[in-house]
Amino acid sequence: MNITFLNDPKLNILLPVIYLAWQDDILTKEEYTALNDFINNQDNFSKAEKDFLKSKIDLNNPPGRSELFFWKDLINKALNNHKPENLTELGFFIANADRSTYSKEDIKVIEPQLLKLEAQLGIISNEAISSLCETHDTITNKLKTVESFSKEKMTALLDGDQAAIINRVKKIISQPEFAFETSTDITVYREKVLEWCKILAKQGFGSHAYPKQYGGAGDIEGYFTIMETLSYHDLSLVIKFGVQFGLWGMSVMFLGTEKHFEKYLKDIGTLDIPGGFAMTETHHGSNVKGLETTATYNHKSRSFTINTPVPFARKEYIGNTALHGEMVTVFAKLIIDDKDYGVNAFIVPIRDRHKNVLSGVRIEDCGHKMGLNGVDNGVIYFDNVVIPYDNMLDRFAQVNEKGEFETSIPSDNRRFFTMLGTLVGGRIGIPRSALAAAKTGLTIAIKYGDNRRQFGPNGGLEVPVLNYRIHQQRLMPYLANTFAIHFGLQYLTKRFMNRTEDDMQEIEALAAGMKSYSTWNTRDALQECREACGGKGYLSENRIDDLKNDTEIYTTFEGDNTVLMQLVAKNRLGEFRKQFSEMNIATIFSYVLDQAKTAVTEKNPFATRNTDDSHLKDPEFHLHAFQYREKELVSSAARRFKRLVDDGLDTFDAANIMHPHMLQIAFAYLDRVFLEQFQLQLKSADESLKEVLTRLYNLFAINKLQENKAWYLEQGYMEGVKTKAIRKLFSQLCWEIRRDAVPIVESFNIPENCLAPIITTNSEQA
Amino acid sequence: MNITFLNDPKLNILLPVIYLAWQDDILTKEEYTALNDFINNQDNFSKAEKDFLKSKIDLNNPPGRSELFFWKDLINKALNNHKPENLTELGFFIANADRSTYSKEDIKVIEPQLLKLEAQLGIISNEAISSLCETHDTITNKLKTVESFSKEKMTALLDGDQAAIINRVKKIISQPEFAFETSTDITVYREKVLEWCKILAKQGFGSHAYPKQYGGAGDIEGYFTIMETLSYHDLSLVIKFGVQFGLWGMSVMFLGTEKHFEKYLKDIGTLDIPGGFAMTETHHGSNVKGLETTATYNHKSRSFTINTPVPFARKEYIGNTALHGEMVTVFAKLIIDDKDYGVNAFIVPIRDRHKNVLSGVRIEDCGHKMGLNGVDNGVIYFDNVVIPYDNMLDRFAQVNEKGEFETSIPSDNRRFFTMLGTLVGGRIGIPRSALAAAKTGLTIAIKYGDNRRQFGPNGGLEVPVLNYRIHQQRLMPYLANTFAIHFGLQYLTKRFMNRTEDDMQEIEALAAGMKSYSTWNTRDALQECREACGGKGYLSENRIDDLKNDTEIYTTFEGDNTVLMQLVAKNRLGEFRKQFSEMNIATIFSYVLDQAKTAVTEKNPFATRNTDDSHLKDPEFHLHAFQYREKELVSSAARRFKRLVDDGLDTFDAANIMHPHMLQIAFAYLDRVFLEQFQLQLKSADESLKEVLTRLYNLFAINKLQENKAWYLEQGYMEGVKTKAIRKLFSQLCWEIRRDAVPIVESFNIPENCLAPIITTNSEQA
Repeated sequence: MNITFLNDPKLNILLPVIYLAWQDDILTKEEYTALNDFINNQDNFSKAEKDFLKSKIDLNNPPGRSELFFWKDLINKALNNHKPENLTELGFFIANADRSTYSKEDIKVIEPQLLKLEAQLGIISNEAISSLCETHDTITNKLKTVESFSKEKMTALLDGDQAAIINRVKKIISQPEFAFETSTDITVYREKVLEWCKILAKQGFGSHAYPKQYGGAGDIEGYFTIMETLSYHDLSLVIKFGVQFGLWGMSVMFLGTEKHFEKYLKDIGTLDIPGGFAMTETHHGSNVKGLETTATYNHKSRSFTINTPVPFARKEYIGNTALHGEMVTVFAKLIIDDKDYGVNAFIVPIRDRHKNVLSGVRIEDCGHKMGLNGVDNGVIYFDNVVIPYDNMLDRFAQVNEKGEFETSIPSDNRRFFTMLGTLVGGRIGIPRSALAAAKTGLTIAIKYGDNRRQFGPNGGLEVPVLNYRIHQQRLMPYLANTFAIHFGLQYLTKRFMNRTEDDMQEIEALAAGMKSYSTWNTRDALQECREACGGKGYLSENRIDDLKNDTEIYTTFEGDNTVLMQLVAKNRLGEFRKQFSEMNIATIFSYVLDQAKTAVTEKNPFATRNTDDSHLKDPEFHLHAFQYREKELVSSAARRFKRLVDDGLDTFDAANIMHPHMLQIAFAYLDRVFLEQFQLQLKSADESLKEVLTRLYNLFAINKLQENKAWYLEQGYMEGVKTKAIRKLFSQLCWEIRRDAVPIVESFNIPENCLAPIITTNSEQA
Repeated sequence: MNITFLNDPKLNILLPVIYLAWQDDILTKEEYTALNDFINNQDNFSKAEKDFLKSKIDLNNPPGRSELFFWKDLINKALNNHKPENLTELGFFIANADRSTYSKEDIKVIEPQLLKLEAQLGIISNEAISSLCETHDTITNKLKTVESFSKEKMTALLDGDQAAIINRVKKIISQPEFAFETSTDITVYREKVLEWCKILAKQGFGSHAYPKQYGGAGDIEGYFTIMETLSYHDLSLVIKFGVQFGLWGMSVMFLGTEKHFEKYLKDIGTLDIPGGFAMTETHHGSNVKGLETTATYNHKSRSFTINTPVPFARKEYIGNTALHGEMVTVFAKLIIDDKDYGVNAFIVPIRDRHKNVLSGVRIEDCGHKMGLNGVDNGVIYFDNVVIPYDNMLDRFAQVNEKGEFETSIPSDNRRFFTMLGTLVGGRIGIPRSALAAAKTGLTIAIKYGDNRRQFGPNGGLEVPVLNYRIHQQRLMPYLANTFAIHFGLQYLTKRFMNRTEDDMQEIEALAAGMKSYSTWNTRDALQECREACGGKGYLSENRIDDLKNDTEIYTTFEGDNTVLMQLVAKNRLGEFRKQFSEMNIATIFSYVLDQAKTAVTEKNPFATRNTDDSHLKDPEFHLHAFQYREKELVSSAARRFKRLVDDGLDTFDAANIMHPHMLQIAFAYLDRVFLEQFQLQLKSADESLKEVLTRLYNLFAINKLQENKAWYLEQGYMEGVKTKAIRKLFSQLCWEIRRDAVPIVESFNIPENCLAPIITTNSEQA
């Protein structure tokens, strides 16, 4: 009789190891040697048996396919009856299946050798056994979407008192004429976007913010809501709409006076006068104070001459002007009798009603862009264009009858920033638009991840990719951010609507900061969404392409984010200085004392090492930690700056060194504001929403702590045990939120036609 | 005589403070109160004088413009003669300018009150004085580009022995027929890209990798160089080229045998047979082992029937097939007599020579994509398409004369991965292409930043934005990464060229890892480049648009990065297990001892707190720190995994928990490899390049330590003082490299026509 595993059961103790060696491709030369040595050392086996076994590990003569099938059958039979701890136990079980091939005593002798062999082969026992099991349930493949709260109530919470107008806008953008334009021809696309704007204007959405006597609804908050809701649809539309009715219209409304309202506002609201907002120059983007375009006053003719003195002073990226604009608000230095009176704003016609470019005006097309190709951005040069006296937007400064400059705000600087301050609305509209785009992206990626299956346990079904923790950890934090930013932007909007003079500096800082924070968040969220959708995410039909490329420039326009964050930090530092007066010894000392007190309560070993779940989820702990970071960053910045200047550095050089630190201040401040707003919403929310909101809130807080853990560790505010516990909690929260994730994104209630074929056509349901 | 500052010099002690209050817009109500109180408390001033001063701080009646000019004149005169410490000193200086208005005794009394007032107003003295100075030199505006090394030598180092072929490719892509296509019509664009491919094929670049007897140069390394160099030009071209000559041609070359080479290879190299590589299916992208397309063997007719059994088994994103492909390599499960013999590869014709789609084949166009629109990606369905016996690519498995399956690699798994292993070249070509795109982006952003000026010290010229540290810190780390990745990819290429059987697993892991690392690096680098170029970066003409959108999918194709990094980590864990055999008590104990030894030498308080520059720049320290991180992450992963499984978790669930940890392992491994390769290059480099390379090297090392500082702090490998010193050194290194940055990017020697108008037309030189 031939020697086989079947005929010679005692050889079966090696069967699982040999099978696995071939099956899992781990039979390297070292492994061969280990097996060979083991076989040679078995006194129990005859020469023929040893030869047989060696033939089964011959590198040049691997077992055939049918032999592998046969071995697997033997193993399966054993596993049906028994769940062994390791391959050794499994081997003995197969060997002893029909009779007592090995006695207890035999086993005692051979078992350690076999275990050693397993170790030499680098086999992890449980893993190996598990891999041999045909099918099994796992926690991972059982995880699935549940709906633990009312989506309608969540939508109501998010929409608040704006629900009516939100629904009106959604209804319009769901209509057939709002089908997305798929032509890549920008001429076609731009006309389509103009057409959409006209439809919206006809419905009164364009003039919504303007006073009633000029055809509007006098509802600025509603205007923001319109911008935000339109952002579920095409973003070129949003920007074209925003340029026309926001930048152009509101520059007239906020910088002009009665005579301008009378003359222009109604026609702007109906899109009868398409226009633009010409501030940025090629050489002056962020540093708008340095604009070089001039508006020279001519007393004789009571007129102004608008001029581009050097080519680089051309107005650039001016939306709605390459094709459609007929007038623009131009920011230019007012010159009277050769004296420079700082930047002021003027209405300058650039085309006649037949779209002919006017004499003295030269317009170039900015051409194809990374995104927003439905918006016609232009470059404008003015060659001594004369405009009448009344075209100066004269709310904050005027030229009087005698041809003298008059203003209620004598500082050029201050007047300029007051003018800009009135336009802060743009920095509210943009982050809200960005957030809507992130919501769309997350809806697509999360719903796709809930259906898309790849890989799975051996023999089991493939698993939805959203069940993988690493996938959850890429998307869920952005879902939590979405809520934090949503509530924060609501707060900003309310602050803006109820602003007083005293509030303005803080509101401007908040708006600048939230604009940067939200647009960067959208940039990162959409990048993750694209990658999370794989190749499908790359197809334009699935919308992440446009969402990403259109919002990409949001980080630059309405103020470069990095520059804006410096303004935010300066504001915080200013507040700090006011609070502490100068950084003399006494105040530093008292501040240090104050910090020391914090240290006593928050930096004691119990607190820095506290890893209790209840502590890590305690809103008080979060708030303290966020505030501590903010305060400490601000006060250390003040100290560092003073030290640098005291050491003889020019303040400009010192500021240069401080910029990265300042960026951190701005983030810390915004994180804290978003946290507070989220906490307030949690308190007042409908009871039935509290559980899911609390999970999102905790993830937001924990994620931010994790992002900044290096800083907390450096400060000794936390120790390694605590930051590790935070990481674990982070993983757990993402896992928990995954179950709610689909209903959560559905509660954004984004019109179906604004979403993507990969999720609307059930393309993943096999 | 009226009271004025001129007539009544003693009042001038308040002039600087009042001027600054109006000038800098800090006259809030609190500040008004502080000034008012100060004035009221001056016994030295008469009622009339007090009234005069109060009239100058009247919130309702701010000073006029000309009055501000006049005050500034007085201040300027004083500053021309004297550099005071604070506004108080300045005030006394103006007051005493013509005579001794205040005696030393007076000053002693009033000075503290004035200083207190300054403090109350939140004025930082040096800053305020500095802001009043008209012009001044700063370190920041004096920083500029220098050329401290030979660009030619640097180019020679980077190009190495590939210089000849690099220059040949650069010459071709600089020719007029390679002018970028600007049409947004994808039909036009796709034809242009095909035309470019044909020109390259005619020059022999397409067949370069193939054996000489089939028209090639037998130079696979040269092929990678061609792909990389082409990547300075249009990336659709690179991908179309790579699909045709790499994926399609090399699948025949590596999976086929003599008969296939004879029949196809020459025509593939000349582009006479355009083709594709049909692996990915809609439902199986990452999990290619799960492919469902079948190739059923028919013994009677000695043929195979290729079939798409369910719609989701359609082949998707297949490059070069929506329009041009005539044949594709199809990966399908081989079925013989109803038995599944695993995935094998077959040549399947899809179009005839007149581009008519063949019967049984259905091809859909993937349509518009985020990028790479010059590549015609298609979806392919097979409806029982019969192909002859010879069309099976039969290097690793065959159907014999009797109709039986034969293979030298019996495990389906192993055979499949052996087949994939031969195609690892794609994972070398892609990261090299990605790196070239990053080099182009960095060249554009850095040269732009060197010219673009915004802001500056008061009264001084505006400063190149690259002089701002925050700007440097956004771009310089990517410049350092570029060199690390460049050297690393050279190393990978050499390893691949000189591979042995035993090496393959490691080379595959390296390639998978470097593909992910490089493509993610490019994604992030190009994002920073875009933002660093502001609005100009958004214009398509400046190329960052295409560079970014074309390479974006590199993170997904040739293997999803996140999935690939898991493979890398598994490989590392496997190596670790082999090294330590099983994690039994003895080995854990000995490993802990080993780690403890590290702790003794590297974790002593001196080392963890060592902030010496020489230590922080010591390659030995870097290597230790990188190795420590890698080892500790691997061993802790092994321990964690074992603990999770021991606690009863299914291995699949345990693996799920471990994925984020595994990602860290892969990064740590790759960081260490890149570091080592950079160190090797430093040692052998030309002496004249060592200084600049050392700076780049240090920045790479320090930046990685900084990115992972939270981990080092958690581990107690570093303390806060050290991580703070690292941050400072990081800032310093970026500052130093900025000077060399322009010559560094110029040493990439990218053809002028592949760069952007913003840097080639001197658009920023005023």
